[in-house]
Parts: sequence; structure tokens; C-alpha cells
Amino acid sequence: MTKMQKQIKLAKRPIGMPEMEDFAFIDAPIGTPSNGEVLIRTIYISVDPYLRGRMQDAKSYIPPFQLNEVITSGVIGQVVESKSEQFATGDVIIGNLGWQEYSVANEKEIRRINPKQAPVTANLSIIGLTGLTAYFGLLDIGQPKAGETVVVSGAAGAVGSTVGQIAKIKGTRVVGIAGSEEKCRYLLNELGFDAAINYKKEDVPSALEKACPNGIDIYFDNVGGSISDAVFPLLNKYARIPICGAISSYNNVNIDMGPRVQTYLIKTSALMKGFTLGDYSNRFKEGGAALAAWLNEGKLKYEETITEGFDHIIDAFLDLFKGANLGKSLVKVADIM
Amino acid sequence: MTKMQKQIKLAKRPIGMPEMEDFAFIDAPIGTPSNGEVLIRTIYISVDPYLRGRMQDAKSYIPPFQLNEVITSGVIGQVVESKSEQFATGDVIIGNLGWQEYSVANEKEIRRINPKQAPVTANLSIIGLTGLTAYFGLLDIGQPKAGETVVVSGAAGAVGSTVGQIAKIKGTRVVGIAGSEEKCRYLLNELGFDAAINYKKEDVPSALEKACPNGIDIYFDNVGGSISDAVFPLLNKYARIPICGAISSYNNVNIDMGPRVQTYLIKTSALMKGFTLGDYSNRFKEGGAALAAWLNEGKLKYEETITEGFDHIIDAFLDLFKGANLGKSLVKVADIM
Repeated sequence: MTKMQKQIKLAKRPIGMPEMEDFAFIDAPIGTPSNGEVLIRTIYISVDPYLRGRMQDAKSYIPPFQLNEVITSGVIGQVVESKSEQFATGDVIIGNLGWQEYSVANEKEIRRINPKQAPVTANLSIIGLTGLTAYFGLLDIGQPKAGETVVVSGAAGAVGSTVGQIAKIKGTRVVGIAGSEEKCRYLLNELGFDAAINYKKEDVPSALEKACPNGIDIYFDNVGGSISDAVFPLLNKYARIPICGAISSYNNVNIDMGPRVQTYLIKTSALMKGFTLGDYSNRFKEGGAALAAWLNEGKLKYEETITEGFDHIIDAFLDLFKGANLGKSLVKVADIM
Repeated sequence: MTKMQKQIKLAKRPIGMPEMEDFAFIDAPIGTPSNGEVLIRTIYISVDPYLRGRMQDAKSYIPPFQLNEVITSGVIGQVVESKSEQFATGDVIIGNLGWQEYSVANEKEIRRINPKQAPVTANLSIIGLTGLTAYFGLLDIGQPKAGETVVVSGAAGAVGSTVGQIAKIKGTRVVGIAGSEEKCRYLLNELGFDAAINYKKEDVPSALEKACPNGIDIYFDNVGGSISDAVFPLLNKYARIPICGAISSYNNVNIDMGPRVQTYLIKTSALMKGFTLGDYSNRFKEGGAALAAWLNEGKLKYEETITEGFDHIIDAFLDLFKGANLGKSLVKVADIM
């Protein structure tokens, strides 16, 4: 008898905030690996804001998800059957795999991770994609110099919290913007941010002005929208703005309108640059090594919000847009054997 | 008896489009040079869109004009009395001087120009500030590569027309956006642009899409506003946007609202950077030499809109915002003797 598993497919393209009925939970047979392939049991699934963009049928840096196909994201799994000489049963691996309980993957699509080097989940967060995103966006585009002021939005998220800590390592003054008192306390007390602004309670323009008496040299933008609007009047000459995400607008149905930024950029000769991690794929080794070193030296901390159970993946994904997560959002599907 | 002259001072800070009554025409004594100074008769006065910004009382890259002080801009003049060993009577000079018929200037504030090298007015345009602005914005921020598509707004203006020609020298496909049929014909027939869009007659988003079948790699922005909005959906991966001016918004009384650009920049990893010519002050020699060489080789053409008479300076300035000028706007105040 064929063994069955659960999968999640995109059933409809969401309009505005995604809803449960945009996704289909399907029972499907577990695949069988051919030569050069392995069968993987899913352990952790990464849920990330950027996935919302892939649910639209629009040109972007990665192709959109197709309707009625399994959604994919970063996955940590364990090899349960190997037809590859490079992987053995029991190996813990990482790759961009499906939202399903088991995957068949080619040996070229996955990479072995060492569970003794760091907690396995760190490979999806602080030493993985989100850590690398923070590393390259801040250092390559932001170019922080000691004594400068760095503002981070989405500061308690997986990327933002890493950005702030790297900015502290580089000797800057760091101001985080987040959405709860608990998150702000975390930034100040756990991560050593110099100031934190709760955008849900405070008037962001005046709070930013108070928190940045010397203006803003770098704004690492994870959110877009009105929070970002408040940054532009405070930019210093030659300010840099790495644009990593715009979570505030991902579920917009109407055009996202705000004050135009051109005159602010002219007045300050400021630079704004969008990026995605793929832009730096030839430098992952450098970034991963730096992050692992800082982690081992105790200079980087990270949090994870782990949701238990395959059935709750969509809940965990939707929680991202409610700001419910602290640090990296993951779903735990099974235990490592 | 003290000799008198006319001066123009800022009488009120304009709200919206400047009006005649924002300026005061004053009769004032002609100054007398001290040691190290010269007395200069004004020959040409440059009127430029950026001066509108200096009429506001707002923090920017240069301090605002003070009320009841003489307005300043680029001026070509002739020395009529010298107390400097570096300048002789009759020398033609350039400097940032007042809107007045005669100026007393320190020898360090001015630079001699050679009337035999190029027409003197070229020192205020193609081989002067506007040419250098085009040169550094396009080449340093835009980084054009042969075969790419470059879009220029304000394309028939002093900066835009130079940008388009340098972009052609670099082997790109150049699309200009301008405000009349005459200007579009000039871009196509005189300057060799590949396409021209009359934003007053055409629907800019669809005209741009048609004129840029391979997308947009560089957008040199002189205007901001809805014309610039139309560019973002057509950006290619790693597009560059030098932001030189935003003339469409300089006279806005209300906040200049438009579609937020962050998601477009993320999707394309595009770069937007504001700049002013002062950012490149240590490279003027390089830029001036390159522009003069291209001019002498016949690779650069330029137009001037010259208004006659000191009394018409304000008219010439206001005409900038009506798009009345082709190329560089100058006011001729006197003849070179």
C-alpha cells in the first residue's frame, strides 16, 4: 500500500491578507527516490514574509508559486532513504523544499548541516538565510561606521534583530522600531539596542526625532509604509537605506501611496537600494563564517517563534503579518530521530 | 557721487509658485574693491530650478537664502577694477555671485575663463555646472553599459540634454521625456535620442512601455512626480536611478504624494541615489576635461535660452517651471567689452 502524507498547495491567489481558503491541504503519496535522490522527512519549515510576494502572479526576483502546486520555503529535514552517495540515512539537511511531510530531493538541491556546530534551527535563522540577509544588507549597502546612527524597522523580527546586533558590533548607535512593549524590552535588555520605539503606541515621527538627536545615517527597512515615511525627514548627508522588505504593503489591495521620497534623497545625497539575498549568493561562505564566529563569541543572540505541527503552518504564516512573532518563525513538523 | 546699480533681493519666502512680489528690485551703491578683491560687471546670470529650494527656510545641502539679501547663482562677469594680483581689468570670470549689475568679489571666489576655448556661456552650461551635473550623475551613479536602456526626464533641459548625449556616447539606447513636440523633435533630430515622449500629449506609462521594450536600466530623474512614478514598474534587475531634481514638486504647497517605491526597488534590487554637484567637487577637473573634449570632437551639442535684460531675471526664473526653456536658461545683463 502506498504511504500517504499531507501537502499544502496554493489553491487561490490571495487578495489582500491571505485566508485559509487560499490554501489546500492535500493527501498525496510519499515519493520514491531515484538514483542521486534522497527521501527526506520534514523537521522544520521556515515561514517568511517574502513568501506572500510569491503568491501573486507578478514579475519579481523569483517566479511566483503556481496554483495547485506545493508551496516551498526553507526546510530542515532528515534523510530517511538515500539513493545518493553523498547522503546517508539520518543526515540532517537543509534546502528549499515543499510544505509537505516528506520530500524527494536531488542531492544537488540540499546541503548537509552539522547539528553539533549550532542548534539545527539556527541554519534557518541566525546563520542561515535571515542572518545572511541582515549581514549583506547592512554591511554591503549600509556600510556602517562607528558612531553613526542606525535605525531598523521590524527590529524584533529575524532579520531586524540580527541587523541591530551587527550594527552594535560595528560601533553604531542603534534604534529599533517594533510593535509591542515586550519586543521593545527585548531589543533594549537582551540585544543592547540604544533605543526602541513601539510604533503601535508612540507617534513614530516625534519618537524617532527624540531617539536620533544626531539624525539618521542608515535606515534598514523591513516594513515600508508610514513608518518608513517618518525616517526621510531625519536623514543625514550621504545616508544609506537598504530596503529588505515592505511587510506593511504585502497585503495591500490598493496602490500603496505615501509622500514621494525624491526631494529628501536629493537634499541629503542619500542612497536607497533594494536587495534580496540572491544578490550575494557568491559571498554566502564569507557571511556564514562571520555570523557563526559572532554567534560562538556570544556577540549574536537570536529568538525563534516555533509553532508545533504541520496543520498550523498557515497560522504561523499569517501571524507574520500580525507581528505575532519574536525573531524567526518556524514550524516544527517532526522530531529528529 | 556714488554710482548706483540694481539688485534683486528675496523679499518674501514664496508659497507655491513664486510671484513677482516675492522679489524686491533695489537701487544700491556699487561697491569698491579692497586688497585681494575685484569689481565685476555682471554679463550673464544663470537661472536654475535648484534656486527654488534655497528660497525655502529649510535644511538642505546648501543654506537657504536669507530674506532681504541679494540672491546668488552662477554668474559670468568681467573685471572692471582690480585690487588683486591674480586678475586684470578685462578678465572674464565665473563665480557664484549676486543678482546685481556689479559685484565686489574676493579673488578666491572667482575663476578666470578663457573666451577663446569655448563660447563664454558654455562655462555656465555644457562645460560648467549643468554639464558636470549630467556627467557625474549619469556616470558615477548610473554606470551606463553599452546596450542598456537609459530614460531621462526633463530631457530637453540643460542637464537632461547632456545626460542623453553622454548616454549615447556610452552606447546605450536613450529615451527622453519632455514637454512639447518641438522639444521631442530636438531630442530625436538634433541630439540623436532613440525615442522621445511628450508627457503633455502622451500617456507616459504606456508610451514608456512602448519606448522601452527591454525595460529600463537607468532612469536619470530631473522631475519627480507622476512622470517618475511611471518608470518604477519598468525597471530591470539592478536598475540605477540618479536623482538630480524634482522640479515637478518644487512649488508644491501640500505634501507630494505618490505610489511608494520600496517594493519596486526590492523586486529589482534597484538603486536610487540623490546627488548634488558638490558631492563631486574633487573631480571637477576630470569632468570638465571630458566634457570639453567631447564638445571639441562635436559629440556634444547644447542649446541656450537667453533672456535679455536684468529686469527680466525673474521672468526667466519663473519660465523654468513652465518648461519654457530649451537647454540652459541664462539672462544676459551686459555685453563683454
